[in-house]
Amino acid sequence: MTRTVADYGLTCGTLPAGARNAITDVPGVRVGHCTLRNGDINTGVTAILPHGGNLFRKKVMAASHVINGFGKTVGLTQVRELGTIETPILLTNTLSVGTCATALIRDAIRLNPDIGRSTGTVNPLVGECNDGPLNDIQALAITEEHARAALADAHEGAVEQGNVGAGTGMSCFGFKGGIGSASRKIILAGERHLGVLVLSNFGKAGDLILPDGRRPDPRQPDQAERGSIMIVLATDVPLERRQLERVARRAGAGIARLGSFWGHGSGDIAIAFSTGNLVDHDETRDLVPLTALNEARIDLLFRAAAEATQEAVLNSMLSADAFTGRAGLHRASLADWLRDQAERR
Amino acid sequence: MTRTVADYGLTCGTLPAGARNAITDVPGVRVGHCTLRNGDINTGVTAILPHGGNLFRKKVMAASHVINGFGKTVGLTQVRELGTIETPILLTNTLSVGTCATALIRDAIRLNPDIGRSTGTVNPLVGECNDGPLNDIQALAITEEHARAALADAHEGAVEQGNVGAGTGMSCFGFKGGIGSASRKIILAGERHLGVLVLSNFGKAGDLILPDGRRPDPRQPDQAERGSIMIVLATDVPLERRQLERVARRAGAGIARLGSFWGHGSGDIAIAFSTGNLVDHDETRDLVPLTALNEARIDLLFRAAAEATQEAVLNSMLSADAFTGRAGLHRASLADWLRDQAERR
Amino acid sequence: MTRTVADYGLTCGTLPAGARNAITDVPGVRVGHCTLRNGDINTGVTAILPHGGNLFRKKVMAASHVINGFGKTVGLTQVRELGTIETPILLTNTLSVGTCATALIRDAIRLNPDIGRSTGTVNPLVGECNDGPLNDIQALAITEEHARAALADAHEGAVEQGNVGAGTGMSCFGFKGGIGSASRKIILAGERHLGVLVLSNFGKAGDLILPDGRRPDPRQPDQAERGSIMIVLATDVPLERRQLERVARRAGAGIARLGSFWGHGSGDIAIAFSTGNLVDHDETRDLVPLTALNEARIDLLFRAAAEATQEAVLNSMLSADAFTGRAGLHRASLADWLRDQAERR
Amino acid sequence: MTRTVADYGLTCGTLPAGARNAITDVPGVRVGHCTLRNGDINTGVTAILPHGGNLFRKKVMAASHVINGFGKTVGLTQVRELGTIETPILLTNTLSVGTCATALIRDAIRLNPDIGRSTGTVNPLVGECNDGPLNDIQALAITEEHARAALADAHEGAVEQGNVGAGTGMSCFGFKGGIGSASRKIILAGERHLGVLVLSNFGKAGDLILPDGRRPDPRQPDQAERGSIMIVLATDVPLERRQLERVARRAGAGIARLGSFWGHGSGDIAIAFSTGNLVDHDETRDLVPLTALNEARIDLLFRAAAEATQEAVLNSMLSADAFTGRAGLHRASLADWLRDQAERR
Repeated sequence: MTRTVADYGLTCGTLPAGARNAITDVPGVRVGHCTLRNGDINTGVTAILPHGGNLFRKKVMAASHVINGFGKTVGLTQVRELGTIETPILLTNTLSVGTCATALIRDAIRLNPDIGRSTGTVNPLVGECNDGPLNDIQALAITEEHARAALADAHEGAVEQGNVGAGTGMSCFGFKGGIGSASRKIILAGERHLGVLVLSNFGKAGDLILPDGRRPDPRQPDQAERGSIMIVLATDVPLERRQLERVARRAGAGIARLGSFWGHGSGDIAIAFSTGNLVDHDETRDLVPLTALNEARIDLLFRAAAEATQEAVLNSMLSADAFTGRAGLHRASLADWLRDQAERR
Repeated sequence: MTRTVADYGLTCGTLPAGARNAITDVPGVRVGHCTLRNGDINTGVTAILPHGGNLFRKKVMAASHVINGFGKTVGLTQVRELGTIETPILLTNTLSVGTCATALIRDAIRLNPDIGRSTGTVNPLVGECNDGPLNDIQALAITEEHARAALADAHEGAVEQGNVGAGTGMSCFGFKGGIGSASRKIILAGERHLGVLVLSNFGKAGDLILPDGRRPDPRQPDQAERGSIMIVLATDVPLERRQLERVARRAGAGIARLGSFWGHGSGDIAIAFSTGNLVDHDETRDLVPLTALNEARIDLLFRAAAEATQEAVLNSMLSADAFTGRAGLHRASLADWLRDQAERR
Repeated sequence: MTRTVADYGLTCGTLPAGARNAITDVPGVRVGHCTLRNGDINTGVTAILPHGGNLFRKKVMAASHVINGFGKTVGLTQVRELGTIETPILLTNTLSVGTCATALIRDAIRLNPDIGRSTGTVNPLVGECNDGPLNDIQALAITEEHARAALADAHEGAVEQGNVGAGTGMSCFGFKGGIGSASRKIILAGERHLGVLVLSNFGKAGDLILPDGRRPDPRQPDQAERGSIMIVLATDVPLERRQLERVARRAGAGIARLGSFWGHGSGDIAIAFSTGNLVDHDETRDLVPLTALNEARIDLLFRAAAEATQEAVLNSMLSADAFTGRAGLHRASLADWLRDQAERR
Repeated sequence: MTRTVADYGLTCGTLPAGARNAITDVPGVRVGHCTLRNGDINTGVTAILPHGGNLFRKKVMAASHVINGFGKTVGLTQVRELGTIETPILLTNTLSVGTCATALIRDAIRLNPDIGRSTGTVNPLVGECNDGPLNDIQALAITEEHARAALADAHEGAVEQGNVGAGTGMSCFGFKGGIGSASRKIILAGERHLGVLVLSNFGKAGDLILPDGRRPDPRQPDQAERGSIMIVLATDVPLERRQLERVARRAGAGIARLGSFWGHGSGDIAIAFSTGNLVDHDETRDLVPLTALNEARIDLLFRAAAEATQEAVLNSMLSADAFTGRAGLHRASLADWLRDQAERR
């Protein structure tokens, strides 16, 4: 089930959330999951679709920012050069990025038979975190079929959070982590949104700081951080790629506010896209009109990105029930810790 | 006078501070100031010397990280390519970077008459923030003589903080900002330190978050952030340049913990150096031995960098008395706000 | 068969080649191929092993440089952050990077059963070019078994070049491209080498310039460049990561000398490693001694990198026989063009 | 006097030059010089104005690319973050960048009295090369007055080249270098141009390769490269900042074609701007329309950038007469070498 910071009287910053407080507050964005829970297998795939059409034909403008690069995300080189996303974004466990990339390639060829024939190839985009402690990651349990199931599940509306999809076996600050989402409403030439979806699997036990200054203790043994966090930011504010990169960078501020210092062993990677300007693969004009944000207004998006990232992580932890995974390893739920605290008063 | 978070019962993180809780806990590092206060002129120069010898001849390894690049720091291109600092670092107001660069050039030629003759040229390193509101920055009041005075004042030991040197006219989260410092003790093959010195001039009024969750209100009108922060990190832990860049990056986490989202109009720039490996300008060997940190230990430096940056900013604000500058513009002191709060209890 | 520029009286620059004029002049480096030629399937895998031991346990220092990022190479984010390579490097066609990444992951787990259990995950490194015109790339013909075959074939000594391994279906400046190699001997504290291996698949027909100024015409119709080039540079000169990145960058000069302007549709990516400093995955010391190059000597490596890259591309083309691929599409051999020219005199 | 490759029967690539074969083929672009020749003082300032209006009020979109960062250019950090140029670009000798930056600041304040008061500060942009061998660079002979004289001299039309302005004391491949320019005509939604101006001071004697394969020998003793090249690219093709960065990068291909491998001691820096989209400092709209290039057409600009850079360097050398500078040091003219060669036939 999905629980958010508001359910616990916490707030992240000052901007209002969107109607669903999720990445799907950005019109057209879809999210789907495929969850594997079977014995020591606790993993999955989460799909984010920037829009419901053919992404290879109508690419969205995008940028990425590597907060800490101990990560294996596939597809960032081309995103950086061309500033476009041309497949769904898949999130999964670290050792399954190859399989998910292949699934995206096959899906793109199916929809666009000219790929690798009369037009260029396709750049699959797959993010990952290491769910090793709770999942038998060596089993490489994810198949292309699971990736397709997550794509098929993608829909607008509410986003299932917590122990679901790629988030199934993730840990965060010694608690159970997983999928989380949040959004901020932005008034810029009308009502618009910035939404964030995270796959949270980072942070050392004891380092978490809540917005009210409390430091929840998961009673986990001290361990080096070998986590990661994938942060996907979506907005319908039209942005130039350079602006998108600036917005993506602010995801790092959001997780720093939670007490993280972007640990060495963590692959902390942000990907941002805007649905405000589409890039037509078959464009025939020499010059193309775009809409960009007046740079003097960009602090509004920076603030939204930091706040929504901070909140999405907390929402991922609050939505995740306590979990016992591979070899009986247990992770407490932050929701339980907060309820205990409330009862003790 | 110098006041630190400990004087107010606050702590930033968990690592212990060094003996002076200042950048000068790193052996050899020197700091000097030249302060101008005269009518509408409220500005100055601060000098940081990585060691007391000839820096052009014995360079320190260095790296930089641009958190947000709305800034005019001089010298970063060569630091990035070569990974060395070969002059003192000067901090001053934005419009005086040219004058300070020229002063560093003349000083380097004086000490090294072969510059631009039988050897290459020299790369001056000058950071800046915009003290425009409190200082008549258009007057370009800083002369090369002031830069030389700051260099001449440089000494080991205690670091004067607050409204001094380049910090004289700076503002931070609507309060008075300025020069601040802090350090962390690190046990790695013996006792070592990471020290930070900041020139704080960033943050929007109302956004500041104290380590205990309080949000001090300077009762300043709402304004766009046009500030900046220069963050200089020093350590005697031997680090490779790539490692130094990773450490420099964590300064961004330190200021994010204060509530900043790295505003658009702010030039937020970190420069890190290690005294653990010197680079000999006149090296004659083909191959040179270095010492690097075991990467698996680097989280200790990341944590130290985030904590010491967070604390150095707070120390800069606590050490700065309330100030009335150009055109009668006033900035309250965070120290006064904290005392008022304590008295109200 | 392997033919080099020297067989045609051409020279690239002024430095002498190593004994094999190949990347395997760097002691310990191994190369292997798996070639698929069957009807419309003309593709393969090439493996480069920095040394013959367990790469995950004893990583080599590395850096990468993206000349033009229209490419799908897997693994660069972590190489950039950590400066190490911990698996063999595989080269293949664009749509097979996922499969080859999975093969590398399985191979690393087999050799290191602690991966994803008691230690972190592994970063597979896979480069690619689009052999679409000559190969039925949509067939995704490469399997994990083919990747393993290339790894198993890896050996020291002579490097098979031309239409082999990943080079089987590649095109270059309208001629047949493929695998090429070259090296330069470097005297730095004894005799050392810099070697290059390329997978050449870039350049527009008519743009190629030979070192003597001639411009070979493949009589191909004018087409947009949709190629790519993967450039792997190896050296036994001990280099810091920052130095390795500087050396990798010079690969771009090598291909520019051939007439390329690094076309939009080309993924031109250089990966450089040094065997001069190994990084022990299980290092227990806090501080680690390294050896770096005296920066004042680095022009020797820059020159070697530019020359060996330029020559490796030409060797790839000279070693590639004329080829008829998918749908009867033909590519002439540069070797034939040069022989025709010689006969006409 | 201005001499170009065409005067010697040489061509750089295949695209046609503009009417003036200079950066001023881009409408609105102005160039001015101030030249100092007096005994051992052989230096100067060159100004490039993207348009004739108030650049702080109407900024041009811009990007930079650091080919090799052994350089002291001032202003790049902000160009990278914001993608705009808001002052003229000044070129001068390495040790005079501070003085020229201050001159640009004063000039901007004069035209915009709100700088540092009711609006932000200004980012001066100053490039440099080391004219040390031929100029008494230690004298710091350039004053703010000389910078103002170069600005005042700026005009549309023909560009004076060779031993003029910042080019007065520069050396290139052992010959006399200096100021050079070239352009290429581009048909994209009408006739447009890409123009280049270089300050050439790089390359080792003996490494120069002419477009016809000849290698001119300046009969200079072998020396390490301590030069640099500043490359300014202008176009009236509307480009997004990401596109401008891609175009700027191709300047590196242009100088690689001349035989350079981007030597260690050379600060090789490209700055590109487009006059096709102006950025209004006082913009009041939330969203702003832009025009970008269809990315599929960008190879035309890449080719133009590589060709015009290659030619601008050659034009700088051909336009430079033989020169005797500080301490009687002599540099031959490439024009003389070519005439000698022609006479010997």
